[in-house]
Amino acid sequence: MSQDYSTKGAYVTGSEFTRDTNYIQDRIVADPRPEAFSHGEPVSKIGHPNAALGEGAQLWQVEAGRYRLVAARACPWANRTLIVRRLLGLEDAISVGLPGPTHDVRSWRFDLDEGGKDPVLGTERLQENYFKRFADYPRGITVPAIVDIPSGAVVTNDYPQITWDFSTQWKQFHREGAPDLVMEDQLDEMLPLIKRIFTEVNNGVYRAGFAGTQAAYEDAYDRIFTTLDYLEERLATRRFLMGDYISEADVRLFTTLIRFDPVYHGHFKANRNKLIEMPNLWGYARDLFQTPGFGDTVDFEQIKDHYYKVHEDINPTQIVPKGPDLSNWLESHNRDELADNGPFLGGTAPGEVRTEERVAAGHNPLYPLEGK
Amino acid sequence: MSQDYSTKGAYVTGSEFTRDTNYIQDRIVADPRPEAFSHGEPVSKIGHPNAALGEGAQLWQVEAGRYRLVAARACPWANRTLIVRRLLGLEDAISVGLPGPTHDVRSWRFDLDEGGKDPVLGTERLQENYFKRFADYPRGITVPAIVDIPSGAVVTNDYPQITWDFSTQWKQFHREGAPDLVMEDQLDEMLPLIKRIFTEVNNGVYRAGFAGTQAAYEDAYDRIFTTLDYLEERLATRRFLMGDYISEADVRLFTTLIRFDPVYHGHFKANRNKLIEMPNLWGYARDLFQTPGFGDTVDFEQIKDHYYKVHEDINPTQIVPKGPDLSNWLESHNRDELADNGPFLGGTAPGEVRTEERVAAGHNPLYPLEGK
Repeated sequence: MSQDYSTKGAYVTGSEFTRDTNYIQDRIVADPRPEAFSHGEPVSKIGHPNAALGEGAQLWQVEAGRYRLVAARACPWANRTLIVRRLLGLEDAISVGLPGPTHDVRSWRFDLDEGGKDPVLGTERLQENYFKRFADYPRGITVPAIVDIPSGAVVTNDYPQITWDFSTQWKQFHREGAPDLVMEDQLDEMLPLIKRIFTEVNNGVYRAGFAGTQAAYEDAYDRIFTTLDYLEERLATRRFLMGDYISEADVRLFTTLIRFDPVYHGHFKANRNKLIEMPNLWGYARDLFQTPGFGDTVDFEQIKDHYYKVHEDINPTQIVPKGPDLSNWLESHNRDELADNGPFLGGTAPGEVRTEERVAAGHNPLYPLEGK
Repeated sequence: MSQDYSTKGAYVTGSEFTRDTNYIQDRIVADPRPEAFSHGEPVSKIGHPNAALGEGAQLWQVEAGRYRLVAARACPWANRTLIVRRLLGLEDAISVGLPGPTHDVRSWRFDLDEGGKDPVLGTERLQENYFKRFADYPRGITVPAIVDIPSGAVVTNDYPQITWDFSTQWKQFHREGAPDLVMEDQLDEMLPLIKRIFTEVNNGVYRAGFAGTQAAYEDAYDRIFTTLDYLEERLATRRFLMGDYISEADVRLFTTLIRFDPVYHGHFKANRNKLIEMPNLWGYARDLFQTPGFGDTVDFEQIKDHYYKVHEDINPTQIVPKGPDLSNWLESHNRDELADNGPFLGGTAPGEVRTEERVAAGHNPLYPLEGK
């Protein structure tokens, strides 16, 4: 199987799908003085909240209006950044560019924008912005990426760090009532959980779908459902993964769950059962979907188009399934009975989505086509 | 897309999947005198119970031990014949050969048999038996096929006629207590129903899976679920399609339903919902599965292997999904509350499956692996 350019730098070596976890590790921070950070290898590639700065990585100053987040709605890793930006109210501080769902080997294009160009960056392909940073950039052109608007160069595509820094470094621009998604006293419990969700579920579905052998596929399948069973049980008594309030962990699980029945179940063969057959996870996913900041970032049509059209290796006809029926995402869940408050701790829900950032009617049951 | 040799002579022309409905139209009948039949075109290609004999078609005499039914468990059209043979108790009169689930362009092989040969016919491939009949046989090598054991030549592969003739022409060999699957006073209602099930569901799933364009796929998808919705409603008040008793119509629907969640939902993208999401159809399918003669013919492993390995055009990796979980086929259904008697009218259920014809342990929840 050839290199997968779909959503991240990722490839198949031998029989195993391997995700390229080398990213542009620059960070945008509140205090960019080098002495504020230790250097060396990041503590952990996954969710590293207080990570040391990677070798050669640079620090950029947080600044409203200077950066543009490029995040395709189709991509689960980019979807995280769209959710956290909404939850924290960073819309004024960080603008967003939205590439279309499908692409060729040269990766993400701004083909949904007028003239096929991002209106702020002026580029047709995100690749151009990578090349402005490194003319010979050798790895996958991935979203999410944050671009420095004045130079047009990509600052970072290190997706676990991006959402973490939105929470920890951009505080001065958070909206009033923004939730704390990375509560200090929860990190000891949350970090191993986030890691497990990444390896077994977020990335596990890709390991299943891009497995080169039956054995590699079955191993990935077993690991996915072992962890989903664990999460199903965990969510029997907790409204959200960390308890009564939403956290970064929920964002990370949600973007896989929302794609599970439309894509991963059939396309990636993660088909022991559908999400809707696991009552706690399904109620939890609906609860989040119906919470402002989560469901309003989801474009089911772009999600399906992306996977089924881009992955010609596993879907050579490029025909996109018409199902599943998604109206059930709006069904009631009664999950609020599990918690006294929430889901925003002392805070509030984010407000309305900006008109220009609204998901197209018919692409999400929150926004039905007229007359439907 | 290339010609599909999978289960029947079938191919894609332009954007539409078309099933070759030209078969070897010979029949094996109780009274083969030509004057007992009118000639000309069959009244209907589908389920034609009292069909006129096709041009050039020959009549063969019903005779115990003379014919061998070749029927791969993987194939839904062949599965029908295995069920009807069991229900009517024709095991003594008509022996059975069981090709393996996977094959190449030369079609079905007896690769599950010792030495890779059918123990009665002595052939490695069913193709040899077709060529004994017509040396230049130009169409698909399909199951079910009935072979004349003395000559080794295929007598007929006309699958809708085969089960019909089992009911109407082989009566002298039916077991005591065998059901009447084609009751004369139900035919006016049953024949249009059978036709609709064939065009919209049995063949509809293939039209969806092998569609050459998005539009052709979506048309097939809509037609499948329109008819499944109709059947869901019909089965709200009827235990079986024709009322209190099982009939040929149930056999024909069952072989598609049993394959729906394991294959058609994902592989053929018939994914508005799973079968288990339609309560009446799902209860009905379980009711039949748990009835002797139905479930005991089903080999889920062979079914999945067949579709996912043979159809390289739509599953180039040939990786076979490990799901879905099938233990739910044994759950209770309470469908008997809908009927006073049944499901065999005045008759009885067929007895135990012969040892040599038993589905392998682990391939069907009726036959769990030891220790499971």
